[in-house]
Order: sequence, then C-alpha cells, then structure tokens
Amino acid sequence: MEKNRLEAFSDGVIAIIITIMVLELKVPHPTEQVSRPDKLTDLKELLPVFLSYILSFIYLGIYWNNHHHMFHATKHVTGGILWANLHLLFWLSLFPFTTGWMGENHLAPTPTAVYGFVLLMAAVAYYILQRRIIASQGRDSLLAAAIGKDWKGKLSPALYFAAIPFAFVSVWISNGLFVFVALMWLVPDRRIERALQQHAKE
Amino acid sequence: MEKNRLEAFSDGVIAIIITIMVLELKVPHPTEQVSRPDKLTDLKELLPVFLSYILSFIYLGIYWNNHHHMFHATKHVTGGILWANLHLLFWLSLFPFTTGWMGENHLAPTPTAVYGFVLLMAAVAYYILQRRIIASQGRDSLLAAAIGKDWKGKLSPALYFAAIPFAFVSVWISNGLFVFVALMWLVPDRRIERALQQHAKE
Amino acid sequence: MEKNRLEAFSDGVIAIIITIMVLELKVPHPTEQVSRPDKLTDLKELLPVFLSYILSFIYLGIYWNNHHHMFHATKHVTGGILWANLHLLFWLSLFPFTTGWMGENHLAPTPTAVYGFVLLMAAVAYYILQRRIIASQGRDSLLAAAIGKDWKGKLSPALYFAAIPFAFVSVWISNGLFVFVALMWLVPDRRIERALQQHAKE
Amino acid sequence: MEKNRLEAFSDGVIAIIITIMVLELKVPHPTEQVSRPDKLTDLKELLPVFLSYILSFIYLGIYWNNHHHMFHATKHVTGGILWANLHLLFWLSLFPFTTGWMGENHLAPTPTAVYGFVLLMAAVAYYILQRRIIASQGRDSLLAAAIGKDWKGKLSPALYFAAIPFAFVSVWISNGLFVFVALMWLVPDRRIERALQQHAKE
Repeated sequence: MEKNRLEAFSDGVIAIIITIMVLELKVPHPTEQVSRPDKLTDLKELLPVFLSYILSFIYLGIYWNNHHHMFHATKHVTGGILWANLHLLFWLSLFPFTTGWMGENHLAPTPTAVYGFVLLMAAVAYYILQRRIIASQGRDSLLAAAIGKDWKGKLSPALYFAAIPFAFVSVWISNGLFVFVALMWLVPDRRIERALQQHAKE
Repeated sequence: MEKNRLEAFSDGVIAIIITIMVLELKVPHPTEQVSRPDKLTDLKELLPVFLSYILSFIYLGIYWNNHHHMFHATKHVTGGILWANLHLLFWLSLFPFTTGWMGENHLAPTPTAVYGFVLLMAAVAYYILQRRIIASQGRDSLLAAAIGKDWKGKLSPALYFAAIPFAFVSVWISNGLFVFVALMWLVPDRRIERALQQHAKE
Repeated sequence: MEKNRLEAFSDGVIAIIITIMVLELKVPHPTEQVSRPDKLTDLKELLPVFLSYILSFIYLGIYWNNHHHMFHATKHVTGGILWANLHLLFWLSLFPFTTGWMGENHLAPTPTAVYGFVLLMAAVAYYILQRRIIASQGRDSLLAAAIGKDWKGKLSPALYFAAIPFAFVSVWISNGLFVFVALMWLVPDRRIERALQQHAKE
Repeated sequence: MEKNRLEAFSDGVIAIIITIMVLELKVPHPTEQVSRPDKLTDLKELLPVFLSYILSFIYLGIYWNNHHHMFHATKHVTGGILWANLHLLFWLSLFPFTTGWMGENHLAPTPTAVYGFVLLMAAVAYYILQRRIIASQGRDSLLAAAIGKDWKGKLSPALYFAAIPFAFVSVWISNGLFVFVALMWLVPDRRIERALQQHAKE
C-alpha cells in the first residue's frame, strides 16, 4: 500500500510537470507590429519552443515509463527510497524551466548546456534511486535481474555530460545527442541493443 | 495493476489539461481606457475565449469518457500501448494552446484551422491507440466487439479534416462541424445512431 | 472500479482548481512607485483577493466533502452520471476566474453578482447530479435516505440566487450570504440544523 | 476506502503545490538592457528564487512524507479529520506565494517573516490534524505510540515562531532556522535524535 501512494504521488507530479511545460507555449499576443497575431507566421517564433516541448515530453514519458517498470519490480518502500524518489522529482520539476529557456532563446549555447545539465542530474538521481531500491530488495531481486548490465542507464548520463561542453561548439551536436538518447530509450530495436551491448563489453 | 497506473496517469494529465485551459480565461486587468474593469461589458472581450473553453471542455470530457470505456475493456498493457497513450496525451496537451489562440483571435480562420488540425491529430492518435489495444487483446476481444463498426470514430476525423480548409471559407462552417461532432458523441440518441449507421452501410 | 476512476478524476480536477486559485494571489512586482515591494503594506492590495481565496477554498472543500459522501453511497455509475459530474466540474472550474475577478476589483457589485451566479450554477449542477444518482440507485437507496429532506441543498441555491441582485444594493449583503451558506455547511451544529428544519416544515 | 480518497486528494494537492512553485522560477525575458537573456549571468537574478524553491520543495517533501506515515497509522476518517486535513492543505497552498515573494525580494526581512509565519501555521495545522486523528483512534492507538513524545513536532513550531522576529534582526538567522528544521526532519541520525530527546527531557 505504501508503494501505491508513492507511485500515485510520482504520477501526479510527472503529469503536472508535463502539462505545465505546455504553458511555455504562449498564445501570441498583439504587439505594436502585429495587432492581430492570427496567422501561421505568428507561430513561427514558437517553433523552437514547440520542438523543445516535444523533446521534453518524450523524456518525461520515458521517465514515467521506466519509473513505472522499476516500481513494478519493487516490493517494499523505505524512507531512503522515498527521498531518492523526491530527489528525482526535483530535477524533473526543472524541465519546464530549462525547456522554456532553451526554446525561447532558439537553442542558444548556454540554455542548451543548462538543459543538458538538468538531464544529467535527473539521470544521476534516477541511478541513485535504482541503487537504493536494489540495496533494499537484495542483489538477487527481480529488479536487479531485470536491469542487468544497464548499459542504457550508464551510457545516457555520459552522453548528457558530453553534450554540455559541446553546446559551446555547436548546439546541434548537443541537441543531436539529446535526440539520440531519447530514441535509444524509445526504440525497442533488439539489434541496436545487442550491438551496443557488444560495444559495452569491449 | 499496470493498467491502473496508466489510467491514473491519463486521468491526471486530462484533469490538468482541462483545468489549465481555464487559465486562458484571464481576469480583465486595468488598462489606460478602463481603470476599473468590473462591469459585465469588460467580460465581452472574453466571450469567444469562454465559448471555445466550453467546446474544448466537452471534447476533453468525451475523450476522458471514451478512454475510460476503452481501458475498461482492456486486460493487459504493453509497451506499445503505453506509448500510443502518451502520443494521445501529447495532442490533448495542445488543446489549451489552440483553444486560447482561437478564442483570443475571435475565431479567426488560421487559429480555427489549427484547432481543427489538433482535433484531427488527437482523433488519429486515439485511433492508433485503439488499434494497438485490439491487436494485443485479439480481434475477438471485448473491445473489438464493443466498438463494432465504429462509424463515429471514422466519421469524426473526416469531419475535422474537412473543417481545416473550410475555416478559410467561413469559420462558422468549421466551428459548426466541431460542435456537430461533439454533439454526435454527447447525445446518445439511438435513432441518429441507427440512421447514420444505415448511411455508413450504403 | 468505474466509480473509483470517476472519483479519482473528480478529486484531481478539484485539487487542481483549488491550487490554481492561489495563482491569482500574485507576488507583488516592482512598479514605478515601489521599486522593492517587500513590505507588509505591499500585500494590502492583495487582501480582498486573499479573503475571496479563503471563501472559495472553503466552498471547494465543502464540494469535495459532499461529493465524497455522495459517491460513497453510490453503487454503480452510468453515462448520465458521468456527464452530470463533468457538468458540475465545469462550473467549479470557473471558481478561480470569478474569485480572482471579485478579489481584484475589491468586491465590486458586478464581479460579486457573477461570483454568486457561478455558485448558483454549481449548486444546480450538484442537484442534477444527485437526482441522476438517486434515479439510477432507486428511491429507497442509501443515498436517498442519507440526504433526507435536503433542506441545505435547497436553501443554498435560493440564497445564492438572492445574493445576485443584492450585490447591486450592497456587496456586503451578498458576501454575507456567501459566508453564511459556507458556515451552514461547515458547522455541524445540530441545534441550528433542527431549528432550520423546523422552519422549513412551516 | 474513505481514507484512500483523502490520501489521494492530499497527494494531488501537494503534488500540484510543489509543481506550481516552479512557475515562480520565470524564464528570463528580453528587456531594454538585455535583448537576448541567454547567458548564465541572466540566471543570477533567479538564484534566491531557486534557493527558496529548494527549501520549500524539501519542506513539502517532509510534509508529504509525514502525512503519508500518519495516515498509514490511521484506521478511519471522520468529518473533523477531513476538515483538519483541508486546513493543513490551505496553509501548504500558500507556500508558492511566500516562496516566490521571499525569493524575488532576495530574502528581505518582511517576506522572510511572512514565510516563517506560513510555516508556523502549517505546523500548527499539522499538529491539530494529528490531535484529531489520535482523539478518534484512541490514546493507545498505533499513531499515538508511533509519535511518542513528538519533540520534533513541538520544537519545529517554536523555531518557526522565533524566526519571525529574528527576520528583522538578520534574515540569515531566520533562514538558518528554516534550514535547520528541514535538516532535523530530513536527517534520520539517531544520535542527534537521542541527544535532542535528552535535552527535551531536562
């Protein structure tokens, strides 16, 4: 029962974060130049905000999905797990801010680096939460088995980390890395998985 | 149990979308012309926003209602269903934006067309979700039987699609189509159903 | 199970409405007159907004409470009940707007009348929902017995209705009526109940 | 079952409060001085807002955590408990406002004192709720035993109370007290607990 309440609370927070992000997509208001902002061109300004919204929506979807599976394989909840979970939710709660900042500045270097930093911290928080759960459930637990080598969980923060300095070289490299990581979690292609696992072994 | 969490998450997102939409209904603030916007006439400007709020509220109510019934007839949830569901929630999450844009521009052609486009995409996303569920539950499943020929589900996107170009002829045709589709789902009149089914067979 | 999802959805919407209302309580920003709005006097402007926030918070608490009890005594949910419930949520969703408008205009007549109108419509929607549930559960049902003569449910809309024209005589009468109705539901004093029931019989 | 709905509602409200607070962290917009606010220095202005966000996030996490445990040890819910719970949620709902006001004014004395006042009222509301539950469950109940002497619950409001006048001496003392109380609940160090319990006995 304790677990249900933690899941419900996390779902609530993630659902609100996802929906609050859309508030950054601001309805265009009349300006001195445009008295009636009712043309498609008036939305052009919003395109980078919209694209970063899509990216963050997918990331939050992935987090919700993985959170879901992780707690499916969790039996009991300890105080440490509760706080590790809140720590994860804290970093996720910064997504609307970094998404909005990156979008409104048309993917400028610093906002892109900060976006990557928050992604990195969320990944670290997720990793800590996972460790906490496995520590309390035992190394032979269902979760430990289900995660296995967890190459995705280890590769993702490394790529976010790389994306931070790359933002000052070219924001397209950083954003390409963000999209690549999202696709890596999204696409359940077994061949890619196997190839990357092979690579991880070497 | 997995299903419950998906339902709870979807309910949360839809509940927040519905309530966030009302934030577009902005309390009138003092301007140079009106220092105390406390008259009924100060709300006149808000009427189109209010009307589009009602329309979108009903649409989200219909989606919640149908989502509810669809998952009632669903036994287990797969990864594909999870993502098809998130895809639907993505398009629903754009309702507050399109509703606000259409309302604030007093139902101008382009915002009306964009409103119709998002309705269309949500209907397509719903259809994909339904297909995914039936594919995983089997063609002889409860859901497949409950949906039957699904003429409403097929007619609605066609009408949304038609409403997009019509917005540039007359926004009243498009909005009439939106209201008609909403009523079609809302009114459980069996005679209309039978008549339209007959029409669909011919 | 259907009932649980309706309850959860209603809880979600009411929880969001209650919390969104607090957004009308805007942090004072620097103006030409006040460069650092960090004094208690800078909150003075917010007092009417704060008082109307308290009033609406209590009203939403009462609605949640009664909704809770009503569905506790409900066995199954029909399509009609679902829509009657959404109709109630629609009027409740307008509380943040009317609360903000009344508060920002320091309880001016028209906003007070509109506040009363939305209270009235919510009460009517609640009554319709109650009728729908009793119609589906049977006149001998637990709910019908629990409600009894329902003098509170009948007196409240009458008082809201009276408060609308009174707002143009004196907003204090209207607001007094709003506070009185809230207290009537809040205070479980049996003597007042008995006295008013006696009065209702005569 | 009644209890579940109260828990779910409280979770919903707390989840929304936590997430709404992040809206005070406003994406920097172009000004006359800065046409492209895309540098790290453009975030400098937000640092106090961010720090108060972290503090309030931790406080809400502690409240959620304790609320969770308290209701875990609660068997049935009465009308009085429902309202005592709503009273607690009311004070928690003011956190986004006081957090934003304190943060935007860079921890100025009055906003800090008001922040402390709302913390104090929330602690009082929590105490009332706890009393209500124990009164209905019996003095020998699980909850009464679990709470024990409740020195943390008694020390916290005393420290918040002290922090209010101290804000006019130095805001660092007040904020130090807020951080200390948060750490006191956060750190489950048994030695500190034992030491403070000893101190409480003397």
